[in-house]
Amino acid sequence: MKQYLKHDEWKVIEDKFHPEFNEITESIFSLGNGRMGQRANFEETYTGKTLQGNYVAGVYYPDKTRVGWWKNGYPEYFAKVLNAANWIGIDIEIEGVKVDLHQATMHDFYRELNMKEGFLHRKCDISLANGKRLKIESLRFNSMADDESGAISYSITPINFSGPIQIKAFIDGDIQNKDSNYNEKFWDQVKVNASENQSFVWSKTKKTHFEVITGQEVQIYQVGQKVDHLAEFETKEKYSALTYNVKVLENETTTVLKYAVNLSSENYSTSEFEIKLSQYLSKITSKGFDQMLQEQALAWAKKWDSNDIVIEGDVAAQQGIRFNIFQLNQTYTGKDDRLNIGPKGFTGEKYGGSTYWDTEAYCIPFYLSTAPSQVAKNLLIYRWKQLDKAIENAQKLGFDQGAALYPMVTMNGEECHNEWEITFEEIHRNGAIAYAIKDYVQYTDDKQHLLDYGWDVLIAIARFWKQRVNWSENLQKYVMLGVTGPNEYENNVNNNWYTNYLAVWCLKYVQEVYQEISELYPKEANLKFEKGQFSVTELAEFEHIVQHMYFPRDEKRGVYLQQDGFLDKIIASVDHIPAHQRPINQHWSWDRILRSCYIKQADVLQGMYFFESDFTLEEIERNYNFYEPLTVHESSLSPCVHSILAAKLGKEDKSYEFYTRAARLDLDDYNNDTEDGCHITSMAGTWMSIIKGFSGQSVQNNLLHLAPFLPKQWKSYRFKINFRQDHLEIEVNREGVKVQNLANHDTEIVIHDKKYQIVANSTINL
Amino acid sequence: MKQYLKHDEWKVIEDKFHPEFNEITESIFSLGNGRMGQRANFEETYTGKTLQGNYVAGVYYPDKTRVGWWKNGYPEYFAKVLNAANWIGIDIEIEGVKVDLHQATMHDFYRELNMKEGFLHRKCDISLANGKRLKIESLRFNSMADDESGAISYSITPINFSGPIQIKAFIDGDIQNKDSNYNEKFWDQVKVNASENQSFVWSKTKKTHFEVITGQEVQIYQVGQKVDHLAEFETKEKYSALTYNVKVLENETTTVLKYAVNLSSENYSTSEFEIKLSQYLSKITSKGFDQMLQEQALAWAKKWDSNDIVIEGDVAAQQGIRFNIFQLNQTYTGKDDRLNIGPKGFTGEKYGGSTYWDTEAYCIPFYLSTAPSQVAKNLLIYRWKQLDKAIENAQKLGFDQGAALYPMVTMNGEECHNEWEITFEEIHRNGAIAYAIKDYVQYTDDKQHLLDYGWDVLIAIARFWKQRVNWSENLQKYVMLGVTGPNEYENNVNNNWYTNYLAVWCLKYVQEVYQEISELYPKEANLKFEKGQFSVTELAEFEHIVQHMYFPRDEKRGVYLQQDGFLDKIIASVDHIPAHQRPINQHWSWDRILRSCYIKQADVLQGMYFFESDFTLEEIERNYNFYEPLTVHESSLSPCVHSILAAKLGKEDKSYEFYTRAARLDLDDYNNDTEDGCHITSMAGTWMSIIKGFSGQSVQNNLLHLAPFLPKQWKSYRFKINFRQDHLEIEVNREGVKVQNLANHDTEIVIHDKKYQIVANSTINL
Repeated sequence: MKQYLKHDEWKVIEDKFHPEFNEITESIFSLGNGRMGQRANFEETYTGKTLQGNYVAGVYYPDKTRVGWWKNGYPEYFAKVLNAANWIGIDIEIEGVKVDLHQATMHDFYRELNMKEGFLHRKCDISLANGKRLKIESLRFNSMADDESGAISYSITPINFSGPIQIKAFIDGDIQNKDSNYNEKFWDQVKVNASENQSFVWSKTKKTHFEVITGQEVQIYQVGQKVDHLAEFETKEKYSALTYNVKVLENETTTVLKYAVNLSSENYSTSEFEIKLSQYLSKITSKGFDQMLQEQALAWAKKWDSNDIVIEGDVAAQQGIRFNIFQLNQTYTGKDDRLNIGPKGFTGEKYGGSTYWDTEAYCIPFYLSTAPSQVAKNLLIYRWKQLDKAIENAQKLGFDQGAALYPMVTMNGEECHNEWEITFEEIHRNGAIAYAIKDYVQYTDDKQHLLDYGWDVLIAIARFWKQRVNWSENLQKYVMLGVTGPNEYENNVNNNWYTNYLAVWCLKYVQEVYQEISELYPKEANLKFEKGQFSVTELAEFEHIVQHMYFPRDEKRGVYLQQDGFLDKIIASVDHIPAHQRPINQHWSWDRILRSCYIKQADVLQGMYFFESDFTLEEIERNYNFYEPLTVHESSLSPCVHSILAAKLGKEDKSYEFYTRAARLDLDDYNNDTEDGCHITSMAGTWMSIIKGFSGQSVQNNLLHLAPFLPKQWKSYRFKINFRQDHLEIEVNREGVKVQNLANHDTEIVIHDKKYQIVANSTINL
Repeated sequence: MKQYLKHDEWKVIEDKFHPEFNEITESIFSLGNGRMGQRANFEETYTGKTLQGNYVAGVYYPDKTRVGWWKNGYPEYFAKVLNAANWIGIDIEIEGVKVDLHQATMHDFYRELNMKEGFLHRKCDISLANGKRLKIESLRFNSMADDESGAISYSITPINFSGPIQIKAFIDGDIQNKDSNYNEKFWDQVKVNASENQSFVWSKTKKTHFEVITGQEVQIYQVGQKVDHLAEFETKEKYSALTYNVKVLENETTTVLKYAVNLSSENYSTSEFEIKLSQYLSKITSKGFDQMLQEQALAWAKKWDSNDIVIEGDVAAQQGIRFNIFQLNQTYTGKDDRLNIGPKGFTGEKYGGSTYWDTEAYCIPFYLSTAPSQVAKNLLIYRWKQLDKAIENAQKLGFDQGAALYPMVTMNGEECHNEWEITFEEIHRNGAIAYAIKDYVQYTDDKQHLLDYGWDVLIAIARFWKQRVNWSENLQKYVMLGVTGPNEYENNVNNNWYTNYLAVWCLKYVQEVYQEISELYPKEANLKFEKGQFSVTELAEFEHIVQHMYFPRDEKRGVYLQQDGFLDKIIASVDHIPAHQRPINQHWSWDRILRSCYIKQADVLQGMYFFESDFTLEEIERNYNFYEPLTVHESSLSPCVHSILAAKLGKEDKSYEFYTRAARLDLDDYNNDTEDGCHITSMAGTWMSIIKGFSGQSVQNNLLHLAPFLPKQWKSYRFKINFRQDHLEIEVNREGVKVQNLANHDTEIVIHDKKYQIVANSTINL
């Protein structure tokens, strides 16, 4: 846990340089606009600790699998979002000495991530080895309005000298992924070029042949005036630069404006790359930096209007939740159904920037509530488009007849992961993907989605479950052998309750959806059924499994068992683990963790969170009381589910405690791993803790339900919700709950199980 | 399956060159003397398919672990027996053209592995690209009498030319392990030298700092006369050579005698390396090649006298069993208690040449019966010397109070393996190590061993089991969670019957041994107990576990269950697997294998084989009939156990069928993997099939028992047994069984449950 960043409601501030934490800061201060993003590297050369990182969404490379012992069925490759050309580079050299904050004497330093307006701002006052003292100020952003571009305003003010300086603005495409398995370089050069005030690097990924052209246009201003300096051009392998030899005067500011554009062959024909690049650069330079920055602030103001959660009385919490919302919006904007949400977003390389079940289980609720429905829908379409690959994936594992197993980790639909106990056995992901469809349709009432996309995915997943269970002669029930649940501290178990429950739910839901689309769209649905070689006898088979599935249960305690044999373990609460052995994943050997009763993240409780209405409060409480004390929460995805259930059970302090565990995970580097990147997908969990936990948001019978409480540490909290046509603002304060209907129509809402009418544009106070 | 080698009772013969199988032949024709060994590479340059391999026993390198996903507790290194300096090299160059069997035109080719006398013999008749035709004959061996040396007689006879040729005899230490994880080279040069007729390469392993000096002395003979040619000396990095420019005459033979010595810092002070090398070379050159070869034949005659199994009426079977016995004797001679038996011996790099539980479960019975008891005893002492490391290993996994977990794979006692489900969970190896002590003492009656070595190991293993089980409140029994049994097609299961049974047996046996040594050696035993902080209350704790251990069992079928939940699988015999999907480990994904009921190698049956007398014949039969049809025998260690049990159950045809599956495994390259090396440890299993299976050998109540049958495919078989002071020859033929007492004292033996007296030096016929 580190606390070197200042608490502030709208900014993240480092007001003294912490080179020892620089890689952490680089992660936290990352910028992105859904289309491209980058770590908060310095523009200048920096020879201290740094992890360079620039990413272009959807551009990946299949890195050859590295494994100790090969198991049949492992994928050959792990597709990774690439570290791409660095477009922020501005090197300054003064009388032969390069500016390098690692070498310079630092008189003053300040950097802030301005979350309200979406930019990164840095100021510093330094002396170089040759005694030259200067101030540097930089402000940069990845444009939300023009999301293939970014801009930097970089200013130098000499303090104790006048004279010539060299400014080199460059694009560097000679990049290596830090986590490359075999130290391969993933990019080949196609072309580099530099001409008057513009230069570019055009690269192509090996194997996948994605092409990206990254270009810059540079302007120099002195005393507020644009200066027509001629640049020296420089190109070398995967590198292009424009160098300006400028005379600077003591106490007068010279500003470099650098406009950059990243175009990908996913969106442009490469034959037009150069012309499109040039046009794009013209477009943004003619807007100019200031207008771009204004548009950026506007775009973010719009985001915040629908996304913000305002907390009064707790600046740290306010900063925490805004940071999470900010990063989620930087990572995914929902414009492109080929994109998804990597666990680290654009903030690092770890986990390959690939798609996990985190998207469906944690992120979709966030986007559903805070963005137009198309955003969440595009995440569903992403999976629908990868259905063929999921069917292929299942075939590789011996399944047939259209059964689909979505990959554990993927980029283009192919499995990337290679740990047998996860790759092959953590199949509950299939259920989460089905669940997200239900979640979406329930929230949006977009039934057409079931016909257009949902059915295809659901029937393929149902077919998988049907083949994956087997009839146990012994139990006279269906069982599911050899799985790993969400709690990855158990591997290869039989009858993981959560997975069995999800499977049965899928098999029921597909029947429901069959009825629904058959009734609503009889003709189109029939065409679909025929095309998918679906016959209704399949439904009967599904129903047989639904009726005869085995669920491990302890009657005495009245709890479901995480898996067969769970009670043969020594059951002892987490406080029995000596403090110096926590987290156990850093102190215990893997087998010891597996044998123990300790749970990494919600498993039975994850199921109860998903299917809350299937269980009585007493049932949920018994299971919560049994499992929570055994849970070490060593996944950042764990606390939110517990926070929500605790809220449901009236355990408000507990609910708040769980919320705080994850809310500032990255800002305080709680797990000592933020240097690898931020925990983007768990940020959605933090949002859920407040919205689904504290405010008790859910959808039941087509009505929005709330059951809010106010954590005693706060004065109030306030947020907006989009629900179907409704647009509401909810405030929970010490007086009670205030719900404002922002729409021009009346609406109904259920609060603490009581239904209220709210007239258009009016407020109710409870 | 390949059948390019000729069947012969005493030789393995390749009478036509098969370059496509060259790497297989290199494995099969490997030579070794327990101290050093090598693959059957050609002496000359060979640019075709080849895997160079020279090995020095006990010299290893810790290769950095390669793994996809790190699990806590994994070892940092995998210690591997190194590919060491190549000492066989003899390059021939004739008018600028090098002899290379891959490039030459082959008129005739013959090579044989002479198992009776222990040498490799090759003849060929070739033409070079320049039209020169010559015959080459080479004969080489690794000396059993002087086991740090080898010798080669290499002859050239020009067929169609006279003139100068160049003979370069070299030592090449610039070697890389093919299976190096990171393509590292493991050797550094210490010194190279070449002087008149002698040269050496002195190398040192990185990290482990083993030093090996490999030297040669070369003599040239023409027309039977030694020629005093002066060599040209050549040294370069890790390489030294002696080059002779010789004039050869058409149809006259020039012979190179190359004497080589390999000394290791394990056995010599490196300060004396050069002088010892020189002395050793003097010793063997003064003996001369012919005498060395005679001594080699003599040494092997002695081996064969005690080891041979003579089969009449089946040449293929005869060759098969002799090949197995030959390789076992080449791999391990039992002189050095720091050495053990790698799964590939000196025939390849795979599995790192490390020690597995194969030694205790399969190899020790072979050496017990065929060699002086010190040989098997040294294998036990090897583990005893590594006890501290086994205790350390257990500590790393969270055990304490002197509990030991022997590694799954090891060189110096440290764990090398890195698959969690094996490294951490295949703990039955601990039981096999305890079992081998019992096996040894039962066979030899060497009770002193229990005091000197056995107790230390047994109490440490017992302490491990005590801590590894846990009390299940649920079952009111002790259970053992998260293990992998010998059947590695199940991972991380609960209550593997075999492991539970072994554990309980260990806990009983340690009590028995406590009684035994307390009575026999009260004073010494007490000292030992004190030193090991042993208290008798531990025995009571052990006994409590013995009394309350849980064993999974199916009452209906009357069989023990391989593990919890086994009957929830779909139980269908192996014939239900389509032929094109066999072996399943090449066709099914790993999870599918795990979920299936199919068994890689004996598991419950392995236990019944170990503890045969604990079960009634009916019990064994029920379990055999249940499990054997589910067993795919995809480990070469599987068939022997089934062969022995089938014999016990009177299923003679089945017993023979299992025997044949493994008997010619390498000779016929049954599994398409002999090119990696021979399956040395399974060879002991083949021997067991005949001795423990067909002849029914066992020791009960201090008496040797036999229950022989004659496979109907054979006329007879005959072998000798050392049992304590007894020395017997047993022949089983169509008339019956003949037992000859070769010792000078009377003895007793039980045959088919009937006790017979056999007077000294006499024979009984039954």
